[in-house]
Amino acid sequence: MNTILLHNSEIHDTNSVTLSDYRFHHISSVISPEIGDELSIGIINTSLGTAKVSALSDTEITLTITNMEKANPAPLPAKLICALPRPKMFRRILHMAVVSGVKEVHFIKTWRVDKSYWSSPFLSDTSCKKIILEALSQTGDTTLPQISFHKQFKPFVEDILPTIIDKTMPILFHPTSEKRFNCTDKENYTLIIGPEGGFIPYEVELLAEAGCQGASMGPRILQVEQAVSAILGHILLTIA
Amino acid sequence: MNTILLHNSEIHDTNSVTLSDYRFHHISSVISPEIGDELSIGIINTSLGTAKVSALSDTEITLTITNMEKANPAPLPAKLICALPRPKMFRRILHMAVVSGVKEVHFIKTWRVDKSYWSSPFLSDTSCKKIILEALSQTGDTTLPQISFHKQFKPFVEDILPTIIDKTMPILFHPTSEKRFNCTDKENYTLIIGPEGGFIPYEVELLAEAGCQGASMGPRILQVEQAVSAILGHILLTIA
Repeated sequence: MNTILLHNSEIHDTNSVTLSDYRFHHISSVISPEIGDELSIGIINTSLGTAKVSALSDTEITLTITNMEKANPAPLPAKLICALPRPKMFRRILHMAVVSGVKEVHFIKTWRVDKSYWSSPFLSDTSCKKIILEALSQTGDTTLPQISFHKQFKPFVEDILPTIIDKTMPILFHPTSEKRFNCTDKENYTLIIGPEGGFIPYEVELLAEAGCQGASMGPRILQVEQAVSAILGHILLTIA
Repeated sequence: MNTILLHNSEIHDTNSVTLSDYRFHHISSVISPEIGDELSIGIINTSLGTAKVSALSDTEITLTITNMEKANPAPLPAKLICALPRPKMFRRILHMAVVSGVKEVHFIKTWRVDKSYWSSPFLSDTSCKKIILEALSQTGDTTLPQISFHKQFKPFVEDILPTIIDKTMPILFHPTSEKRFNCTDKENYTLIIGPEGGFIPYEVELLAEAGCQGASMGPRILQVEQAVSAILGHILLTIA
Protein backbone atom coordinates (compact mmCIF):
# COMPACT_ATOMS: atom_id res chain seq x y z
CA MET A 1 0.00 0.00 0.00
CA ASN A 2 2.27 2.75 -1.30
CA THR A 3 -0.58 5.26 -1.51
CA ILE A 4 -3.43 5.47 1.02
CA LEU A 5 -6.59 5.72 -1.08
CA LEU A 6 -9.48 7.78 0.24
CA HIS A 7 -13.02 8.33 -0.97
CA ASN A 8 -14.16 11.92 -1.35
CA SER A 9 -17.16 11.20 0.89
CA GLU A 10 -14.84 10.25 3.77
CA ILE A 11 -13.18 13.67 3.91
CA HIS A 12 -14.53 16.20 6.44
CA ASP A 13 -14.92 19.93 5.88
CA THR A 14 -11.71 20.36 7.84
CA ASN A 15 -9.85 18.54 5.04
CA SER A 16 -9.18 15.62 7.31
CA VAL A 17 -10.15 11.98 7.42
CA THR A 18 -10.24 9.47 10.27
CA LEU A 19 -9.51 5.84 9.39
CA SER A 20 -10.11 2.76 11.49
CA ASP A 21 -10.41 0.06 8.82
CA TYR A 22 -7.77 -2.00 6.92
CA ARG A 23 -5.98 1.23 6.00
CA PHE A 24 -5.48 2.12 9.66
CA HIS A 25 -4.15 -1.39 10.33
CA HIS A 26 -1.76 -1.17 7.40
CA ILE A 27 -0.53 2.30 8.33
CA SER A 28 0.01 1.46 11.99
CA SER A 29 1.63 -1.95 11.43
CA VAL A 30 3.71 -1.34 8.29
CA ILE A 31 4.45 2.41 8.21
CA SER A 32 4.13 3.12 11.98
CA PRO A 33 4.22 6.90 11.58
CA GLU A 34 4.34 9.54 14.31
CA ILE A 35 2.19 12.66 14.64
CA GLY A 36 3.29 15.16 12.00
CA ASP A 37 4.65 12.58 9.52
CA GLU A 38 3.53 12.92 5.92
CA LEU A 39 1.97 10.04 4.01
CA SER A 40 1.23 9.63 0.29
CA ILE A 41 -2.50 9.67 -0.34
CA GLY A 42 -4.90 9.69 -3.24
CA ILE A 43 -8.59 10.52 -3.57
CA ILE A 44 -10.45 8.02 -5.78
CA ASN A 45 -11.02 9.38 -9.30
CA THR A 46 -9.35 12.67 -8.36
CA SER A 47 -5.60 13.08 -7.81
CA LEU A 48 -2.64 12.21 -5.60
CA GLY A 49 -1.10 14.20 -2.79
CA THR A 50 0.09 14.09 0.80
CA ALA A 51 -1.48 14.19 4.24
CA LYS A 52 -0.08 14.77 7.72
CA VAL A 53 -0.80 12.49 10.64
CA SER A 54 -2.75 14.78 12.97
CA ALA A 55 -4.04 12.26 15.52
CA LEU A 56 -3.19 8.66 16.29
CA SER A 57 -4.62 6.13 18.78
CA ASP A 58 -4.70 2.36 19.17
CA THR A 59 -7.84 2.16 17.05
CA GLU A 60 -7.74 4.99 14.53
CA ILE A 61 -5.65 7.56 12.72
CA THR A 62 -6.56 11.05 11.54
CA LEU A 63 -4.89 12.46 8.44
CA THR A 64 -5.05 16.11 7.39
CA ILE A 65 -4.60 16.69 3.68
CA THR A 66 -1.75 19.09 2.90
CA ASN A 67 -1.50 18.79 -0.86
CA MET A 68 -3.59 17.24 -3.64
CA GLU A 69 -1.72 18.48 -6.68
CA LYS A 70 0.02 15.39 -8.00
CA ALA A 71 -1.63 14.13 -11.20
CA ASN A 72 -2.41 10.47 -11.76
CA PRO A 73 0.04 8.63 -14.01
CA ALA A 74 -1.16 8.43 -17.60
CA PRO A 75 -3.49 5.49 -18.25
CA LEU A 76 -2.10 2.70 -20.42
CA PRO A 77 -3.30 3.29 -23.99
CA ALA A 78 -4.87 -0.17 -24.08
CA LYS A 79 -8.12 -1.92 -23.26
CA LEU A 80 -7.94 -5.60 -22.32
CA ILE A 81 -10.29 -8.37 -23.39
CA CYS A 82 -9.38 -11.68 -21.78
CA ALA A 83 -11.00 -15.10 -21.79
CA LEU A 84 -12.04 -15.66 -18.17
CA PRO A 85 -9.08 -17.47 -16.58
CA ARG A 86 -9.18 -19.81 -13.59
CA PRO A 87 -9.85 -17.96 -10.31
CA LYS A 88 -6.30 -17.60 -8.96
CA MET A 89 -5.06 -16.39 -12.31
CA PHE A 90 -8.07 -14.06 -12.64
CA ARG A 91 -7.00 -12.25 -9.51
CA ARG A 92 -3.41 -11.84 -10.64
CA ILE A 93 -4.33 -10.80 -14.19
CA LEU A 94 -6.80 -8.18 -12.95
CA HIS A 95 -4.19 -6.93 -10.47
CA MET A 96 -1.48 -6.68 -13.16
CA ALA A 97 -3.87 -4.92 -15.56
CA VAL A 98 -4.77 -2.29 -12.97
CA VAL A 99 -1.16 -1.83 -11.85
CA SER A 100 -0.18 -1.28 -15.49
CA GLY A 101 -2.86 1.41 -15.91
CA VAL A 102 -5.49 -0.44 -17.98
CA LYS A 103 -8.83 1.35 -17.46
CA GLU A 104 -11.20 -1.02 -19.23
CA VAL A 105 -11.09 -4.80 -18.78
CA HIS A 106 -13.54 -7.31 -20.25
CA PHE A 107 -13.59 -10.96 -19.22
CA ILE A 108 -15.38 -13.12 -21.74
CA LYS A 109 -16.71 -16.63 -22.22
CA THR A 110 -15.00 -18.69 -24.92
CA TRP A 111 -15.28 -22.37 -25.84
CA ARG A 112 -12.32 -23.38 -23.68
CA VAL A 113 -13.34 -21.39 -20.57
CA ASP A 114 -14.37 -23.88 -17.89
CA LYS A 115 -17.96 -23.25 -16.78
CA SER A 116 -16.96 -23.50 -13.10
CA TYR A 117 -14.82 -20.34 -13.38
CA TRP A 118 -17.97 -18.21 -13.51
CA SER A 119 -18.96 -19.16 -9.98
CA SER A 120 -15.64 -18.08 -8.43
CA PRO A 121 -16.13 -15.73 -5.45
CA PHE A 122 -13.26 -13.60 -6.86
CA LEU A 123 -15.68 -12.32 -9.52
CA SER A 124 -18.01 -10.63 -7.00
CA ASP A 125 -18.21 -6.84 -6.91
CA THR A 126 -16.67 -6.81 -3.44
CA SER A 127 -13.74 -8.99 -4.42
CA CYS A 128 -13.04 -7.10 -7.66
CA LYS A 129 -13.16 -3.80 -5.79
CA LYS A 130 -10.64 -5.13 -3.26
CA ILE A 131 -8.25 -6.31 -6.01
CA ILE A 132 -8.62 -2.98 -7.83
CA LEU A 133 -8.03 -0.81 -4.75
CA GLU A 134 -4.95 -2.84 -3.75
CA ALA A 135 -3.54 -2.49 -7.25
CA LEU A 136 -4.26 1.27 -7.50
CA SER A 137 -2.78 1.78 -4.06
CA GLN A 138 0.39 -0.10 -5.07
CA THR A 139 0.89 1.61 -8.42
CA GLY A 140 -0.01 5.13 -7.22
CA ASP A 141 -3.13 5.88 -9.25
CA THR A 142 -6.65 6.93 -8.23
CA THR A 143 -8.64 6.33 -11.43
CA LEU A 144 -10.93 3.30 -11.07
CA PRO A 145 -11.01 0.97 -14.08
CA GLN A 146 -14.22 -0.50 -15.50
CA ILE A 147 -14.49 -4.28 -15.29
CA SER A 148 -17.13 -6.20 -17.26
CA PHE A 149 -18.04 -9.84 -17.63
CA HIS A 150 -19.61 -11.28 -20.78
CA LYS A 151 -21.03 -14.77 -20.61
CA GLN A 152 -21.94 -15.22 -24.28
CA PHE A 153 -19.24 -15.12 -26.93
CA LYS A 154 -21.19 -14.46 -30.13
CA PRO A 155 -23.42 -11.62 -28.80
CA PHE A 156 -20.31 -10.09 -27.24
CA VAL A 157 -18.40 -10.09 -30.53
CA GLU A 158 -21.35 -8.91 -32.61
CA ASP A 159 -23.00 -6.34 -30.32
CA ILE A 160 -20.42 -5.11 -27.79
CA LEU A 161 -16.97 -5.54 -29.36
CA PRO A 162 -17.51 -2.92 -32.12
CA THR A 163 -18.01 -0.19 -29.48
CA ILE A 164 -14.97 -1.32 -27.47
CA ILE A 165 -12.56 -1.42 -30.42
CA ASP A 166 -13.81 1.83 -31.95
CA LYS A 167 -10.83 4.21 -32.44
CA THR A 168 -8.39 1.54 -31.20
CA MET A 169 -6.22 -1.03 -32.96
CA PRO A 170 -7.70 -4.42 -31.94
CA ILE A 171 -4.98 -7.06 -31.65
CA LEU A 172 -5.89 -10.74 -31.32
CA PHE A 173 -2.93 -12.58 -29.80
CA HIS A 174 -2.77 -15.95 -31.47
CA PRO A 175 0.26 -18.26 -31.56
CA THR A 176 -0.13 -19.26 -35.21
CA SER A 177 -0.40 -15.71 -36.53
CA GLU A 178 2.43 -14.75 -38.86
CA LYS A 179 2.42 -11.08 -37.93
CA ARG A 180 4.18 -9.68 -34.90
CA PHE A 181 2.77 -7.10 -32.49
CA ASN A 182 4.50 -3.91 -33.56
CA CYS A 183 3.83 -1.67 -30.56
CA THR A 184 4.27 2.10 -30.90
CA ASP A 185 3.57 4.93 -28.48
CA LYS A 186 1.20 6.57 -30.99
CA GLU A 187 -1.63 4.06 -30.88
CA ASN A 188 -4.51 2.99 -28.65
CA TYR A 189 -4.90 -0.77 -28.52
CA THR A 190 -7.54 -3.31 -27.65
CA LEU A 191 -5.67 -6.45 -26.59
CA ILE A 192 -7.54 -9.74 -26.99
CA ILE A 193 -6.15 -12.75 -25.14
CA GLY A 194 -7.56 -16.26 -25.37
CA PRO A 195 -7.83 -19.00 -22.73
CA GLU A 196 -5.23 -21.71 -22.00
CA GLY A 197 -5.36 -23.81 -25.17
CA GLY A 198 -6.36 -20.78 -27.24
CA PHE A 199 -9.44 -19.64 -29.11
CA ILE A 200 -11.08 -22.27 -31.34
CA PRO A 201 -11.00 -21.60 -35.12
CA TYR A 202 -14.65 -20.45 -35.16
CA GLU A 203 -13.86 -17.82 -32.51
CA VAL A 204 -10.76 -16.64 -34.35
CA GLU A 205 -12.85 -16.31 -37.51
CA LEU A 206 -15.57 -14.30 -35.77
CA LEU A 207 -12.99 -11.97 -34.16
CA ALA A 208 -11.21 -11.51 -37.51
CA GLU A 209 -14.53 -10.66 -39.20
CA ALA A 210 -15.08 -8.05 -36.50
CA GLY A 211 -11.80 -6.40 -37.54
CA CYS A 212 -9.30 -7.86 -35.05
CA GLN A 213 -5.78 -8.32 -36.39
CA GLY A 214 -3.86 -11.44 -35.44
CA ALA A 215 -0.42 -11.11 -33.84
CA SER A 216 1.97 -13.70 -32.48
CA MET A 217 4.34 -13.32 -29.54
CA GLY A 218 7.04 -15.43 -31.19
CA PRO A 219 7.85 -19.14 -30.98
CA ARG A 220 7.74 -19.48 -27.17
CA ILE A 221 4.59 -20.73 -25.45
CA LEU A 222 3.54 -18.55 -22.52
CA GLN A 223 0.83 -19.18 -19.94
CA VAL A 224 -2.07 -16.72 -20.17
CA GLU A 225 -0.90 -14.80 -17.11
CA GLN A 226 2.65 -14.58 -18.47
CA ALA A 227 1.35 -13.44 -21.85
CA VAL A 228 -0.78 -10.69 -20.27
CA SER A 229 2.15 -9.48 -18.13
CA ALA A 230 4.50 -9.55 -21.11
CA ILE A 231 2.15 -7.61 -23.40
CA LEU A 232 1.16 -5.00 -20.80
CA GLY A 233 4.81 -4.65 -19.76
CA HIS A 234 5.81 -4.20 -23.39
CA ILE A 235 3.33 -1.34 -23.83
CA LEU A 236 4.25 0.16 -20.43
CA LEU A 237 7.94 0.23 -21.33
CA THR A 238 7.30 1.40 -24.88
CA ILE A 239 5.39 4.47 -23.65
CA ALA A 240 7.57 5.05 -20.52
CA MET B 1 4.09 -29.88 -20.51
CA ASN B 2 3.85 -28.94 -24.19
CA THR B 3 7.14 -30.68 -25.02
CA ILE B 4 8.26 -33.96 -23.42
CA LEU B 5 11.90 -33.37 -22.45
CA LEU B 6 14.32 -36.30 -22.64
CA HIS B 7 17.93 -36.71 -21.60
CA ASN B 8 20.30 -38.09 -24.22
CA SER B 9 21.36 -40.83 -21.80
CA GLU B 10 17.77 -42.14 -21.66
CA ILE B 11 17.60 -42.90 -25.37
CA HIS B 12 18.35 -46.48 -26.50
CA ASP B 13 20.27 -47.48 -29.62
CA THR B 14 16.91 -48.16 -31.22
CA ASN B 15 16.12 -44.44 -30.99
CA SER B 16 13.45 -45.10 -28.44
CA VAL B 17 12.88 -44.23 -24.81
CA THR B 18 10.67 -45.81 -22.14
CA LEU B 19 9.23 -43.50 -19.52
CA SER B 20 7.57 -44.41 -16.24
CA ASP B 21 8.14 -41.24 -14.19
CA TYR B 22 6.22 -37.94 -13.99
CA ARG B 23 6.40 -37.64 -17.77
CA PHE B 24 4.55 -40.94 -18.18
CA HIS B 25 1.90 -39.79 -15.72
CA HIS B 26 1.48 -36.48 -17.52
CA ILE B 27 1.29 -38.09 -20.96
CA SER B 28 -1.21 -40.75 -19.91
CA SER B 29 -3.45 -38.46 -17.85
CA VAL B 30 -3.39 -35.22 -19.87
CA ILE B 31 -2.59 -36.23 -23.47
CA SER B 32 -3.90 -39.86 -23.31
CA PRO B 33 -2.43 -40.82 -26.69
CA GLU B 34 -2.89 -44.09 -28.58
CA ILE B 35 -0.21 -46.27 -30.19
CA GLY B 36 1.07 -44.49 -33.30
CA ASP B 37 0.24 -40.95 -32.11
CA GLU B 38 3.01 -38.36 -32.43
CA LEU B 39 4.14 -36.23 -29.49
CA SER B 40 6.38 -33.14 -29.37
CA ILE B 41 9.68 -33.96 -27.70
CA GLY B 42 13.01 -32.33 -27.02
CA ILE B 43 16.41 -33.67 -26.03
CA ILE B 44 18.07 -31.53 -23.34
CA ASN B 45 20.71 -29.19 -24.80
CA THR B 46 20.09 -30.58 -28.29
CA SER B 47 16.98 -29.86 -30.35
CA LEU B 48 13.24 -30.39 -30.65
CA GLY B 49 11.35 -32.98 -32.67
CA THR B 50 8.63 -35.61 -32.60
CA ALA B 51 8.28 -39.17 -31.38
CA LYS B 52 5.68 -41.88 -32.01
CA VAL B 53 4.03 -43.82 -29.22
CA SER B 54 5.30 -47.37 -29.92
CA ALA B 55 4.18 -49.10 -26.72
CA LEU B 56 1.85 -48.20 -23.89
CA SER B 57 0.89 -49.94 -20.65
CA ASP B 58 -0.60 -48.96 -17.29
CA THR B 59 2.86 -48.17 -15.93
CA GLU B 60 5.02 -46.99 -18.82
CA ILE B 61 5.14 -45.59 -22.33
CA THR B 62 7.70 -46.16 -25.10
CA LEU B 63 8.35 -43.39 -27.58
CA THR B 64 10.28 -43.85 -30.84
CA ILE B 65 11.92 -40.71 -32.13
CA THR B 66 10.86 -39.88 -35.68
CA ASN B 67 12.38 -36.43 -36.15
CA MET B 68 14.84 -34.23 -34.24
CA GLU B 69 15.23 -31.38 -36.70
CA LYS B 70 13.37 -28.50 -35.05
CA ALA B 71 15.80 -25.89 -33.69
CA ASN B 72 15.40 -24.37 -30.25
CA PRO B 73 13.85 -20.89 -30.21
CA ALA B 74 16.47 -18.15 -30.03
CA PRO B 75 17.59 -17.37 -26.48
CA LEU B 76 16.52 -13.99 -25.09
CA PRO B 77 19.42 -11.54 -25.58
CA ALA B 78 19.48 -10.80 -21.87
CA LYS B 79 21.06 -12.04 -18.67
CA LEU B 80 19.16 -11.47 -15.44
CA ILE B 81 20.56 -10.39 -12.08
CA CYS B 82 17.87 -10.26 -9.42
CA ALA B 83 17.95 -9.61 -5.69
CA LEU B 84 16.84 -12.90 -4.13
CA PRO B 85 13.05 -12.56 -3.74
CA ARG B 86 10.84 -14.34 -1.21
CA PRO B 87 10.47 -18.07 -1.96
CA LYS B 88 7.11 -18.08 -3.76
CA MET B 89 8.17 -15.19 -5.93
CA PHE B 90 11.57 -16.81 -6.54
CA ARG B 91 9.86 -19.78 -8.12
CA ARG B 92 7.67 -17.66 -10.37
CA ILE B 93 10.49 -15.31 -11.39
CA LEU B 94 12.81 -18.20 -12.27
CA HIS B 95 9.97 -19.86 -14.20
CA MET B 96 9.19 -16.67 -16.14
CA ALA B 97 12.90 -16.08 -16.89
CA VAL B 98 13.31 -19.58 -18.32
CA VAL B 99 10.04 -19.42 -20.27
CA SER B 100 11.21 -16.12 -21.80
CA GLY B 101 14.52 -17.69 -22.89
CA VAL B 102 16.95 -16.18 -20.37
CA LYS B 103 20.00 -18.47 -20.23
CA GLU B 104 21.90 -16.93 -17.32
CA VAL B 105 20.25 -15.93 -14.05
CA HIS B 106 22.03 -14.64 -10.94
CA PHE B 107 20.26 -14.24 -7.62
CA ILE B 108 22.13 -11.92 -5.29
CA LYS B 109 22.19 -10.73 -1.70
CA THR B 110 21.38 -7.06 -1.18
CA TRP B 111 20.72 -5.05 1.97
CA ARG B 112 16.96 -5.47 1.76
CA VAL B 113 16.99 -9.23 1.04
CA ASP B 114 15.61 -11.02 4.10
CA LYS B 115 18.18 -13.50 5.45
CA SER B 116 15.51 -16.21 5.80
CA TYR B 117 15.06 -16.34 2.00
CA TRP B 118 18.42 -18.13 1.66
CA SER B 119 17.16 -21.18 3.52
CA SER B 120 14.16 -21.71 1.25
CA PRO B 121 13.95 -25.29 -0.08
CA PHE B 122 13.10 -23.82 -3.52
CA LEU B 123 16.77 -22.85 -3.88
CA SER B 124 18.02 -26.45 -3.82
CA ASP B 125 19.49 -27.97 -6.98
CA THR B 126 16.60 -30.43 -7.18
CA SER B 127 13.95 -27.74 -6.87
CA CYS B 128 15.63 -25.38 -9.35
CA LYS B 129 16.00 -28.23 -11.84
CA LYS B 130 12.29 -29.02 -11.51
CA ILE B 131 11.29 -25.38 -12.08
CA ILE B 132 13.66 -25.14 -15.07
CA LEU B 133 12.47 -28.37 -16.73
CA GLU B 134 8.81 -27.40 -16.29
CA ALA B 135 9.49 -24.00 -17.83
CA LEU B 136 11.52 -25.39 -20.76
CA SER B 137 8.87 -28.02 -21.35
CA GLN B 138 6.16 -25.34 -21.42
CA THR B 139 7.97 -22.89 -23.69
CA GLY B 140 9.38 -25.51 -26.08
CA ASP B 141 13.12 -25.15 -25.55
CA THR B 142 15.82 -27.66 -24.60
CA THR B 143 18.74 -25.41 -23.64
CA LEU B 144 19.32 -25.44 -19.88
CA PRO B 145 20.00 -22.03 -18.31
CA GLN B 146 22.72 -21.42 -15.74
CA ILE B 147 21.48 -20.35 -12.30
CA SER B 148 23.86 -18.91 -9.71
CA PHE B 149 23.46 -17.60 -6.18
CA HIS B 150 25.72 -14.93 -4.69
CA LYS B 151 25.53 -14.34 -0.96
CA GLN B 152 27.86 -11.33 -0.73
CA PHE B 153 27.02 -8.13 -2.55
CA LYS B 154 30.34 -6.30 -2.70
CA PRO B 155 32.50 -9.25 -3.84
CA PHE B 156 29.82 -10.04 -6.41
CA VAL B 157 29.87 -6.52 -7.86
CA GLU B 158 33.65 -6.22 -7.79
CA ASP B 159 34.77 -9.68 -8.85
CA ILE B 160 31.95 -11.39 -10.73
CA LEU B 161 29.79 -8.66 -12.27
CA PRO B 162 32.49 -7.41 -14.72
CA THR B 163 32.59 -10.83 -16.41
CA ILE B 164 28.79 -11.08 -16.57
CA ILE B 165 28.23 -7.64 -18.11
CA ASP B 166 31.14 -7.91 -20.55
CA LYS B 167 29.83 -7.29 -24.12
CA THR B 168 26.33 -6.53 -22.81
CA MET B 169 24.51 -3.31 -21.90
CA PRO B 170 24.01 -3.51 -18.11
CA ILE B 171 20.74 -1.85 -17.08
CA LEU B 172 20.00 -1.13 -13.44
CA PHE B 173 16.24 -0.72 -13.03
CA HIS B 174 15.71 1.98 -10.48
CA PRO B 175 12.51 3.98 -9.96
CA THR B 176 14.22 7.34 -9.49
CA SER B 177 16.34 7.13 -12.63
CA GLU B 178 15.52 9.79 -15.18
CA LYS B 179 16.40 7.67 -18.19
CA ARG B 180 14.04 5.17 -19.76
CA PHE B 181 14.92 1.67 -20.91
CA ASN B 182 15.18 2.06 -24.67
CA CYS B 183 15.10 -1.56 -25.80
CA THR B 184 16.23 -2.46 -29.30
CA ASP B 185 16.65 -5.82 -31.02
CA LYS B 186 20.34 -5.08 -31.71
CA GLU B 187 21.65 -5.29 -28.15
CA ASN B 188 22.52 -7.87 -25.51
CA TYR B 189 21.42 -6.77 -22.05
CA THR B 190 22.22 -7.55 -18.46
CA LEU B 191 19.09 -6.67 -16.48
CA ILE B 192 19.60 -5.81 -12.82
CA ILE B 193 16.51 -5.83 -10.59
CA GLY B 194 16.50 -4.88 -6.93
CA PRO B 195 14.47 -6.27 -4.01
CA GLU B 196 11.07 -4.99 -2.81
CA GLY B 197 11.96 -1.55 -1.45
CA GLY B 198 14.83 -1.21 -3.92
CA PHE B 199 18.61 -1.12 -3.70
CA ILE B 200 20.04 1.17 -1.01
CA PRO B 201 22.05 4.21 -2.22
CA TYR B 202 25.39 2.52 -1.47
CA GLU B 203 24.43 -0.42 -3.68
CA VAL B 204 23.25 1.85 -6.50
CA GLU B 205 26.56 3.71 -6.28
CA LEU B 206 28.63 0.52 -6.43
CA LEU B 207 26.63 -0.77 -9.42
CA ALA B 208 26.96 2.57 -11.20
CA GLU B 209 30.73 2.54 -10.62
CA ALA B 210 30.82 -0.93 -12.17
CA GLY B 211 29.27 0.55 -15.33
CA CYS B 212 25.57 -0.17 -14.87
CA GLN B 213 23.21 2.40 -16.38
CA GLY B 214 20.10 3.40 -14.46
CA ALA B 215 16.71 3.13 -16.14
CA SER B 216 13.21 3.73 -14.85
CA MET B 217 10.03 1.92 -15.84
CA GLY B 218 7.92 5.06 -15.59
CA PRO B 219 5.85 6.50 -12.75
CA ARG B 220 3.98 3.31 -11.79
CA ILE B 221 5.22 1.15 -8.93
CA LEU B 222 5.44 -2.53 -9.83
CA GLN B 223 6.14 -5.49 -7.57
CA VAL B 224 9.45 -7.23 -8.34
CA GLU B 225 7.72 -10.13 -10.07
CA GLN B 226 5.62 -7.76 -12.17
CA ALA B 227 8.70 -5.73 -13.08
CA VAL B 228 10.63 -8.83 -14.17
CA SER B 229 7.68 -10.07 -16.27
CA ALA B 230 7.21 -6.63 -17.82
CA ILE B 231 10.88 -6.20 -18.73
CA LEU B 232 11.36 -9.74 -20.07
CA GLY B 233 8.05 -9.45 -21.97
CA HIS B 234 9.17 -6.13 -23.43
CA ILE B 235 12.38 -7.67 -24.77
CA LEU B 236 10.55 -10.81 -25.96
CA LEU B 237 8.05 -8.73 -27.93
CA THR B 238 10.71 -6.32 -29.21
CA ILE B 239 12.73 -9.16 -30.74
CA ALA B 240 9.70 -11.29 -31.79
